[in-house]
Amino acid sequence: MLQDFCVAVEDPASALFVNGKFCKDPKLASANDFFFSGLNVFRDTSNSLGSNVTAVNVDNLAGLNTLGMSLARIDFAPYGLNPPHTHPRATEFFIVLEGTLYAGFVTSDGDAGNRLFTKMLYLGDVFVFPFGLIHFQLNVGKTNAVAFAGFRSQNPGLITIANAVFESNPKINPDVLTKAF
Amino acid sequence: MLQDFCVAVEDPASALFVNGKFCKDPKLASANDFFFSGLNVFRDTSNSLGSNVTAVNVDNLAGLNTLGMSLARIDFAPYGLNPPHTHPRATEFFIVLEGTLYAGFVTSDGDAGNRLFTKMLYLGDVFVFPFGLIHFQLNVGKTNAVAFAGFRSQNPGLITIANAVFESNPKINPDVLTKAF
Amino acid sequence: MLQDFCVAVEDPASALFVNGKFCKDPKLASANDFFFSGLNVFRDTSNSLGSNVTAVNVDNLAGLNTLGMSLARIDFAPYGLNPPHTHPRATEFFIVLEGTLYAGFVTSDGDAGNRLFTKMLYLGDVFVFPFGLIHFQLNVGKTNAVAFAGFRSQNPGLITIANAVFESNPKINPDVLTKAF
Amino acid sequence: MLQDFCVAVEDPASALFVNGKFCKDPKLASANDFFFSGLNVFRDTSNSLGSNVTAVNVDNLAGLNTLGMSLARIDFAPYGLNPPHTHPRATEFFIVLEGTLYAGFVTSDGDAGNRLFTKMLYLGDVFVFPFGLIHFQLNVGKTNAVAFAGFRSQNPGLITIANAVFESNPKINPDVLTKAF
Amino acid sequence: MLQDFCVAVEDPASALFVNGKFCKDPKLASANDFFFSGLNVFRDTSNSLGSNVTAVNVDNLAGLNTLGMSLARIDFAPYGLNPPHTHPRATEFFIVLEGTLYAGFVTSDGDAGNRLFTKMLYLGDVFVFPFGLIHFQLNVGKTNAVAFAGFRSQNPGLITIANAVFESNPKINPDVLTKAF
Amino acid sequence: MLQDFCVAVEDPASALFVNGKFCKDPKLASANDFFFSGLNVFRDTSNSLGSNVTAVNVDNLAGLNTLGMSLARIDFAPYGLNPPHTHPRATEFFIVLEGTLYAGFVTSDGDAGNRLFTKMLYLGDVFVFPFGLIHFQLNVGKTNAVAFAGFRSQNPGLITIANAVFESNPKINPDVLTKAF
Repeated sequence: MLQDFCVAVEDPASALFVNGKFCKDPKLASANDFFFSGLNVFRDTSNSLGSNVTAVNVDNLAGLNTLGMSLARIDFAPYGLNPPHTHPRATEFFIVLEGTLYAGFVTSDGDAGNRLFTKMLYLGDVFVFPFGLIHFQLNVGKTNAVAFAGFRSQNPGLITIANAVFESNPKINPDVLTKAF
Repeated sequence: MLQDFCVAVEDPASALFVNGKFCKDPKLASANDFFFSGLNVFRDTSNSLGSNVTAVNVDNLAGLNTLGMSLARIDFAPYGLNPPHTHPRATEFFIVLEGTLYAGFVTSDGDAGNRLFTKMLYLGDVFVFPFGLIHFQLNVGKTNAVAFAGFRSQNPGLITIANAVFESNPKINPDVLTKAF
Repeated sequence: MLQDFCVAVEDPASALFVNGKFCKDPKLASANDFFFSGLNVFRDTSNSLGSNVTAVNVDNLAGLNTLGMSLARIDFAPYGLNPPHTHPRATEFFIVLEGTLYAGFVTSDGDAGNRLFTKMLYLGDVFVFPFGLIHFQLNVGKTNAVAFAGFRSQNPGLITIANAVFESNPKINPDVLTKAF
Repeated sequence: MLQDFCVAVEDPASALFVNGKFCKDPKLASANDFFFSGLNVFRDTSNSLGSNVTAVNVDNLAGLNTLGMSLARIDFAPYGLNPPHTHPRATEFFIVLEGTLYAGFVTSDGDAGNRLFTKMLYLGDVFVFPFGLIHFQLNVGKTNAVAFAGFRSQNPGLITIANAVFESNPKINPDVLTKAF
Repeated sequence: MLQDFCVAVEDPASALFVNGKFCKDPKLASANDFFFSGLNVFRDTSNSLGSNVTAVNVDNLAGLNTLGMSLARIDFAPYGLNPPHTHPRATEFFIVLEGTLYAGFVTSDGDAGNRLFTKMLYLGDVFVFPFGLIHFQLNVGKTNAVAFAGFRSQNPGLITIANAVFESNPKINPDVLTKAF
Repeated sequence: MLQDFCVAVEDPASALFVNGKFCKDPKLASANDFFFSGLNVFRDTSNSLGSNVTAVNVDNLAGLNTLGMSLARIDFAPYGLNPPHTHPRATEFFIVLEGTLYAGFVTSDGDAGNRLFTKMLYLGDVFVFPFGLIHFQLNVGKTNAVAFAGFRSQNPGLITIANAVFESNPKINPDVLTKAF
């Protein structure tokens, strides 16, 4: 932090890019730059995984630039899954607002490594996914489930393991995948 | 971050203190160390301010140690106020779950300083309070209001301006307060 | 730190802003970019508070950009006050060069919180105001007083509590202030 | 960095743990604390993957404690694979000392995400694996291959995707894995 | 920063060391922990260099622990020298309180490197020595000189070039010194 | 880290400079941005010191920008010397690939300071030079020697003591050098 805030702006005119975003002239910042609306709305989960992540980060809440935080709403259909993934740049906390979720994370390799920590989560429960570890949530109830997540980065990043490993563009050499999995 | 996690433990035996907390032996960590329950419960707001902050930080969710995040539930009676305060060690995001809140923050001193940024917040609205700035929320509805907050620190700290300035222990010299206010 | 220095420049031409400042071409930097003159001069304290802060930060000592430090001279008339304030982005050390000052800071809320730590300071005394805490200095002598301060930020920020809470632009809703104070 | 160095020691006696390691009394530190031997020796690659990682981090080179770096030697049998993995706490650079390796990493999800960046690497070639991204190396030559890696962490961590996802202890619920993969 | 402060304590009893210092029980902290006295006193400069540095850091002002700052008073006899040195862990600002000093620093190697930036400094002048660069001050007046310095580290470290290169314990191999100088 | 990577670009057109480098449009990044070739080639050591440092940092491996690492190959003729120097922005690890090197570093000033830590290094040996300390390597064998180094900075900087102190541009005042050395 070098100033009170640095509301993000894109700069297509000069075609310059920085790590993060350029700032709006601070004198022109207003309350709306720090505001986002609609996290109460249920999102469509009619996809193959039965889940939908609504990310609120520096791309759609410009005031988060340089402040090191972001958030998300995650909707789950019955049996919907937020599949194994990591956030390469953030720890996450997760609060259940509706439904019953089975959540877990796996520790890194090592002597007592690759331990799976899981918890059944109900309304009002909080779970923490430590920085960089693979984690997931599964709706184990017969109704929709909803959760909010907080991240310690303005842009935590998302690496969905199945996408990155099996659906990259171009695909990873099959010799690699066959030998690894 | 120097390891996957460092679940906090107190160490009364050796009477040693560090910045933050000592860690539990990582081999003994379990899912419960990353879990907190009960953020769905309405908290009693029958106090003079008509608000109640339930903090979930490294003191009651030990797994947050070294992970740089914490959260809170804030309950508001009708016309309840979370009075002007700062978090000396954290930016905050704030999500409304119930009711209607009038929230604001004030920029620091300077040429175009001490600007008040406010927003009326409804169900599903998000507002960001930048690092270290004085902010508040007032329930302007006739019903209870509830919000969740996320902080970018395992222990953001809270400085309620009225308490720190007018109710410190011992009290600040009246010459200071009279001249300043 | 990614290079020896990054002397600040403004960039009104392209109307771009970054967190902090753009750098001067390092090849054009000179000794004058790291120099500031005149901290020996007594500043006018004929104002309602009887104090005057001369800040030396990245805005008037461009070489401080990216170096994470700044400083100030504070002049006090007899009974002059540097009123309760915080620096949202810096710890401060304070050295008395002339006169007798009564200085204090208040810890954050909590079980043993809002403790007031004060000290009578004479010529050559040093006092430390920890990061983000509310603090003040009062000239309790019958003569002028002078102090130097060092800050751990190129732009520590200043939140004078009375200004931010009672004199913001626009003013905070009186319902908030009445209930809080 | 708060001192020249902080050579790591274990502290089984008091059974205390910190994030990272306690320090040896600095007065007792010696050159051997900053020394590690044997990175020239070919390691056995007769395992199912045909590769072997020799990590040199704070666990076996105590002087690295608090210095934020570590390294590794990786040996590959012909067609040996260092399978898809992430380092949750480090960027990596990779230098080929012997043989021919096909290396790649995958960007995170997003509009133009999950892009695979690959390169055929020969003697003296360097490749960079950005922080937290999934990457791999495959020996595509008919001879052994050897590489050195540098990491920006005293303990970068290793998450071998196949181990963490399919071989955790206990195993991840098959409903999760079936739906995800 | 994970708490308001962490006043340093030594812990000879348990013979444990951490990077930095252990903290005093925060409940036992008092104003004296943040106080240092005597920076007004002229220090003896009757040594071969004709200068004397009085360091105020975490070793004698315990409240500075974890706050990332320290300071010093430097006394100079006529023609006294604070010889070429670096602070491996801090940027420094320097204020002249008495006398006339000739100060300078040298940029790092490179195309336009090893540039010497110098300035004649009088009462009330400030000069900045960027992080890690070699710098010096020479009293060019016929009277004593006094300056205060601020550092961006609780323990900036000091490497006096002549001592480290020519007077180390044991001495550096003469083959190295002869070839280098 | 605010994004997966930020491949460096120069921006001569707009004549803007930032701390570090601007980024290439991330959509245009490719594997070559993370690649460097030729660290296997012996470099000419026919100079007065008999050594040659081939630096691989953000200036010639653009993908290192924002990733906080760099590397180097160092070639030594018989009796060649990499003379006493510091890296103001990085710790270094050093691996011997060929030959026999005598390496050392000196701790900072203080009660038990200016200690010289040395080690004779052979093929496959690793030595660590802590952040900011003066260090050197001398080829004590009758053959060429080669080493790789890793640095914890995209641009560690190099201060060759003899150059900075005795060959700066302009030269340091001889009164300073005579009194200091």
